[in-house]
Amino acid sequence: VKKTIIVFSGDLDRALAAFIIANGAAAMGDEVTMFFTFWGLSVIRRPTGRSTTPRSRLQRLFVRMLPRGPGRLPLSRMQFLGMGPPLMRRAMADRHVPDLDSLIATAREQGVKFVACSMSMDVLGFQPEDLIDGVEVAGVASYLADADTANVNLFV
Amino acid sequence: VKKTIIVFSGDLDRALAAFIIANGAAAMGDEVTMFFTFWGLSVIRRPTGRSTTPRSRLQRLFVRMLPRGPGRLPLSRMQFLGMGPPLMRRAMADRHVPDLDSLIATAREQGVKFVACSMSMDVLGFQPEDLIDGVEVAGVASYLADADTANVNLFV
Amino acid sequence: VKKTIIVFSGDLDRALAAFIIANGAAAMGDEVTMFFTFWGLSVIRRPTGRSTTPRSRLQRLFVRMLPRGPGRLPLSRMQFLGMGPPLMRRAMADRHVPDLDSLIATAREQGVKFVACSMSMDVLGFQPEDLIDGVEVAGVASYLADADTANVNLFV
Repeated sequence: VKKTIIVFSGDLDRALAAFIIANGAAAMGDEVTMFFTFWGLSVIRRPTGRSTTPRSRLQRLFVRMLPRGPGRLPLSRMQFLGMGPPLMRRAMADRHVPDLDSLIATAREQGVKFVACSMSMDVLGFQPEDLIDGVEVAGVASYLADADTANVNLFV
Repeated sequence: VKKTIIVFSGDLDRALAAFIIANGAAAMGDEVTMFFTFWGLSVIRRPTGRSTTPRSRLQRLFVRMLPRGPGRLPLSRMQFLGMGPPLMRRAMADRHVPDLDSLIATAREQGVKFVACSMSMDVLGFQPEDLIDGVEVAGVASYLADADTANVNLFV
Repeated sequence: VKKTIIVFSGDLDRALAAFIIANGAAAMGDEVTMFFTFWGLSVIRRPTGRSTTPRSRLQRLFVRMLPRGPGRLPLSRMQFLGMGPPLMRRAMADRHVPDLDSLIATAREQGVKFVACSMSMDVLGFQPEDLIDGVEVAGVASYLADADTANVNLFV
């Protein structure tokens, strides 16, 4: 059966929850689509490099301020001026829980479909080359088509 | 098919996401219900005016502190001491993305049903006249009746 | 029909919303599962006592910092340096809305199933004896099995 998850949040903890659910479902044979929108675009952002497409001043501001990929995401809680995320990563490693990079890699290996919201990309100034490979760019109609045929639809 | 969205959050960005999904679904012929609860009541609050019903001191505090409609909502991220929301509105206008006021107007034109949570209104001290026109006031049983016959149910 | 709610957030207001929906559904005869993960574990934490299982330094930090049950949860908004939650509780009591402790008790009486995420417990250093009685510990596969047979699945 199908599942969809909208990753709206750009928080490390919420992204972890989204990928753990997505990978669990994919492992059980489900067809999973993750739809990255707003701050969630940071989750699938490339850590380095920058597209050379011209951007407005506002878009340059967003692109400069928004975190570049899993290694830079904040926590929604216990952020502790930036000390929280490395502590969380360490606590996960201590218990042999895969980190977000590994979860993303597993999701891709398992065929989870990654879709980036075209409207959010346009507003925030992201280009496809700012994101990791294998991400489709689409709008809300594409999300709704997937959600309509899914039996679990979450907004994270 | 039916869709429901609980708008719990009073953040501009989350409200935008909720209305973009709601309008997309309504445009595809779906019957959509948005259920506004807790801080989400701010999203459908009238910008001016104040009901004259007597309120407790605590309710007056909530009513005074909570944002009055789309133009006053904060962002969940990049709030920047209040500079974030106008920047986001400007970025959206630059890319010809409709603002939250227009999205709300479109939702109403398309027949999206707006329901305000009666319990939240009671606790926070909101009266129907504090909200925009055309909002039904109902409780969780009403939400559940809609959700039971819907195929997509989101909590934003 | 079945319903599932993932309680990811450890905020008082989001927990209230989750339990009001869960109890409403259970009162209508639905079979409801609440899955507590990440900060949501605080919601079902015992206010006093401490398991004697050895913990790592990091786990001791999480266990010390995370709120102990409904009486200590912060608000996602209007936290006011800790003054918000008692004001919210007072506003609810003024309007005869049951507090989170009562909502949790009602949920249990109505047979709502409480599941704590085993992975989150492991990472944050929680033991079953840190949680209130009657909580099952299980992983994402258990959540998915419930969600697959439910008609409403929310992420709070």
